[in-house]
Amino acid sequence: MSSIRIALAQIDTSVGNLEANAAKVLDYSRRAGAQHATVVAFPEMTLTGYPIEDLALRATFRKAAWDKANEMATTLEQEGLGQLYVVVGTIGTDHGNGKPRNRLVVLHNGQVWAAYDKHFLPNYGVFDEFRIFSSGDRSVVLDIEGVQVGVAICEDIWQDGGPVAAMANQNIDLLLTINGSPYEEGKGHVRTELAARRAAEVNAPIVYLNQVGGQDDLVFDGASFVLDTDGALLERSPMFMEDLSFIDIDTELEHQQQSTIAAMPDPDEEVYTACVLGLKDYMAKNGFKGVTLGLSGGIDSALVAAMAADACGGENVWGISMPSMYSSDGSKDDAADLATNLNAHYEIQPIEPLFKAFQQQLDLQGVAAENLQARIRGVIVMAKSNSQGVLALATGNKSELACGYSTIYGDAVGGYAPIKDLFKTKVWQLSRWRNAAAAEGMGIGGLHIVGNEQGNAGVMPESGVIIPVNSIEKAPSAELRPGQKDSDSLPEYNLLDQVLAAYIEHAHGRADLIADGFDEATVDTVMRLVDRAEWKRRQYPLGPKVSALAFGRDRRLPITNAFRE
Amino acid sequence: MSSIRIALAQIDTSVGNLEANAAKVLDYSRRAGAQHATVVAFPEMTLTGYPIEDLALRATFRKAAWDKANEMATTLEQEGLGQLYVVVGTIGTDHGNGKPRNRLVVLHNGQVWAAYDKHFLPNYGVFDEFRIFSSGDRSVVLDIEGVQVGVAICEDIWQDGGPVAAMANQNIDLLLTINGSPYEEGKGHVRTELAARRAAEVNAPIVYLNQVGGQDDLVFDGASFVLDTDGALLERSPMFMEDLSFIDIDTELEHQQQSTIAAMPDPDEEVYTACVLGLKDYMAKNGFKGVTLGLSGGIDSALVAAMAADACGGENVWGISMPSMYSSDGSKDDAADLATNLNAHYEIQPIEPLFKAFQQQLDLQGVAAENLQARIRGVIVMAKSNSQGVLALATGNKSELACGYSTIYGDAVGGYAPIKDLFKTKVWQLSRWRNAAAAEGMGIGGLHIVGNEQGNAGVMPESGVIIPVNSIEKAPSAELRPGQKDSDSLPEYNLLDQVLAAYIEHAHGRADLIADGFDEATVDTVMRLVDRAEWKRRQYPLGPKVSALAFGRDRRLPITNAFRE
Repeated sequence: MSSIRIALAQIDTSVGNLEANAAKVLDYSRRAGAQHATVVAFPEMTLTGYPIEDLALRATFRKAAWDKANEMATTLEQEGLGQLYVVVGTIGTDHGNGKPRNRLVVLHNGQVWAAYDKHFLPNYGVFDEFRIFSSGDRSVVLDIEGVQVGVAICEDIWQDGGPVAAMANQNIDLLLTINGSPYEEGKGHVRTELAARRAAEVNAPIVYLNQVGGQDDLVFDGASFVLDTDGALLERSPMFMEDLSFIDIDTELEHQQQSTIAAMPDPDEEVYTACVLGLKDYMAKNGFKGVTLGLSGGIDSALVAAMAADACGGENVWGISMPSMYSSDGSKDDAADLATNLNAHYEIQPIEPLFKAFQQQLDLQGVAAENLQARIRGVIVMAKSNSQGVLALATGNKSELACGYSTIYGDAVGGYAPIKDLFKTKVWQLSRWRNAAAAEGMGIGGLHIVGNEQGNAGVMPESGVIIPVNSIEKAPSAELRPGQKDSDSLPEYNLLDQVLAAYIEHAHGRADLIADGFDEATVDTVMRLVDRAEWKRRQYPLGPKVSALAFGRDRRLPITNAFRE
Repeated sequence: MSSIRIALAQIDTSVGNLEANAAKVLDYSRRAGAQHATVVAFPEMTLTGYPIEDLALRATFRKAAWDKANEMATTLEQEGLGQLYVVVGTIGTDHGNGKPRNRLVVLHNGQVWAAYDKHFLPNYGVFDEFRIFSSGDRSVVLDIEGVQVGVAICEDIWQDGGPVAAMANQNIDLLLTINGSPYEEGKGHVRTELAARRAAEVNAPIVYLNQVGGQDDLVFDGASFVLDTDGALLERSPMFMEDLSFIDIDTELEHQQQSTIAAMPDPDEEVYTACVLGLKDYMAKNGFKGVTLGLSGGIDSALVAAMAADACGGENVWGISMPSMYSSDGSKDDAADLATNLNAHYEIQPIEPLFKAFQQQLDLQGVAAENLQARIRGVIVMAKSNSQGVLALATGNKSELACGYSTIYGDAVGGYAPIKDLFKTKVWQLSRWRNAAAAEGMGIGGLHIVGNEQGNAGVMPESGVIIPVNSIEKAPSAELRPGQKDSDSLPEYNLLDQVLAAYIEHAHGRADLIADGFDEATVDTVMRLVDRAEWKRRQYPLGPKVSALAFGRDRRLPITNAFRE
């Protein structure tokens, strides 16, 4: 036989939650079996969740993952699914040095079969794998009903050489790679171009299976795909949703038959959805049903509130307006309109009496007095978070966080910051997109996203608008003193965001920035702001390390670690 | 000629501050030259400071470091010190892949001479070097006036194989290793045992030169040393102080002559001094002249205040007593006594009026009301920090941080947490040691530490006691509700600290902890507390990553980065 059916199980796992991840693998395996799949493939580190950071170092966790894989193989066989080849990611142990390994196993005929260990361990950007794992040192080709399937894990196809290069002359029929590839704007093209190169290198079609969902501060977009030997797109799974798709591979055909190709969202929808999915999964994996945040009437808190309503429904959003003596009437109205549009809870807590009580004791001036206002608001938001059991959201955007244009323990409080990686200009752009999407019929909660039923258009506000137009159009202000505007302290955002992108994202130094064409005064202003902000951020406690392992730097356990053994 | 004099320049550098580091290298080189040294050796990454994390990735910084090394070589020659061999650590660039390298260069005869690049790049615990640097691939033996000096950088001697192994048959006369080895309790013995093994391996004496001082959340203890071929101790520099020591190496002698051997502090003094040095250098490198903190009358804030007074003098410590309706008279008296002993500024800010103002609006119950008290205190401490320009200190210890027994944005506020890596039992132990040291004549500021003049005994309090005995002896309480005691929520600290050490420092899982002999109920309590605290700590904002580089995980610039190009 020279034809097999592969099921692409693009699922959302949870770090440390072996039970839930295993249950999901069984569920998708049953569905794949019912559709006569030969193979069902799951993402990198399916069983353990990904990325698991230092949880990998706990030996009892590795043992539990091993036991769980065996238990699943048994269950599948008992249910009559023994003949299915279930490809799952998990954790192994290096018998040489005792270090963990990032492993792919196959559950088949009641056994845990054929292990492949990830060869290239990424250690740049958000990745820390070289620190945790040891490298596999051999390539693996599975014989699945006569079809030769080479396997790889994520980074293995991003580097030249290694196990994929070793397969180039092995006449394989298919390259199957399982991935935990985090979302980045525009990364989809990079992945397909790379995969096309590897398909050519091994002279076979490639299946690229990616994880979906938010995990801690990463978002995985899914968008799994299959390319033919010549790079032609045969299948694409949707972005941001769990999915089970199928592809038939017939080794006797020169070109494989196309399967379903999901449409891609437009660029603004893509980024907006990534932010909402990150928040939604952060809430789900940490057990939060609702959120609270301060609503200032400004654009940042408005966009965050809209994202929150899209993630958990307006009825689970607790907005607090906290006007001071410097808040304009317009701001208060905009905050109220927003809450109405979102059908969010809304309360007003004026901070003036509290500010006066503090000032009677402390008599602060200047920045200290401005920070006091923001910190009183922080206390109120956290009080709501504690008493209601809801997650506090921080509303800072990337431009203001980069420049330190926020108050530590003030407006910066919160357990999750949905727009911390969006420049201010992008905040405006996504706000406009969200209103445009509403105009085209996308109500609150109507995003195409994990957990949303297909065809659910969401709840449309009576006004037809999500974010008050006034919040988008007016000049931004922190309103911490009379007549204050962001532009008093910062360059115009159009310019600022360009300098920040070059300085932060591309590590351009002063000379580089001037060569980029920015004027010297602006460069010096921005560099001073960013470096000062870096320093301000350290108002969160550091401390000395005096014993083998301290907290912080070297205890990198993920938060949503559900493993309790 | 077969005899050379080596100067061990154990200095305290500052990350990113090329000017200051270069000035210090020149100063010590002049002093070494005046004492007829042939070679003067400085620590790992002397010029750049260490660890520099992502600053290494900025090309303009690497260029500036290269220019500075050349400028120094020229200056040394112009001053008539061209014949001196000045061994300094710096940063280089890999001509193959453009990645930074951790480099050792020799300044000699006006040139930057003979580069050796670190081979083994540690990537465990606090180290991240594999992420940043590429590896050197050759060993280097310097011919210094006929004496064959093999060189290595830090981790190169911690791993078997590599450049040191390559020197085993090269008949070298001396192995010189420059280091940035962070302090850990009891690490001194580990270093000397390891160095003795390497001396035997290369059949030559070994010079182990270490950095001293605090940098971000690491403390380097210095304690450089020289061992003879047979492992005999020939020289030891003091811990926690800058130092210039000399050793003569005569290749015609079978055993080298001993030089000065500094005395070592006792174990409690060692840990206490490490904490004070960490704080002192954090202040110096971030430009803080004073500190502020809440003084509750309890042992944690008392020990932190004593450390602060030892770091910067009691006159630069601003203590704030913030009693509530639940604070005992004893606590208030203990706080006042402490301030008197330390000659610290002391003010009283009762929180009851502020608490009432909030409660009139919010009417909080239970934990939310308890947290409100702590957060009002946090606002007051930060107001003092902002208006006075002083560093806020967090007073949490490792036991309570591990168990989440603190309020986020409340007592946890501050820019530096001097005792965050000390278990509660150690807090008591060090407090007793500090009083005992005072009884033996060590006044405030009298520690043997970077920047303290030799023979300065410090200022003795009139009472002869630093920390009020009552703060040490009484049962610990957060005093957030009537009659509250830590033991209501936590196991007794003697037991708790043992379980925490096994769980956190040795990654023992539940089964391991029970096998360690701890009873099941205690193990479950502690695991639940620690895992919950891990979750609570994430009330600091995370957010999704949607672009090439975000903040947080992948912007790991060190704080005390003084480089502004």
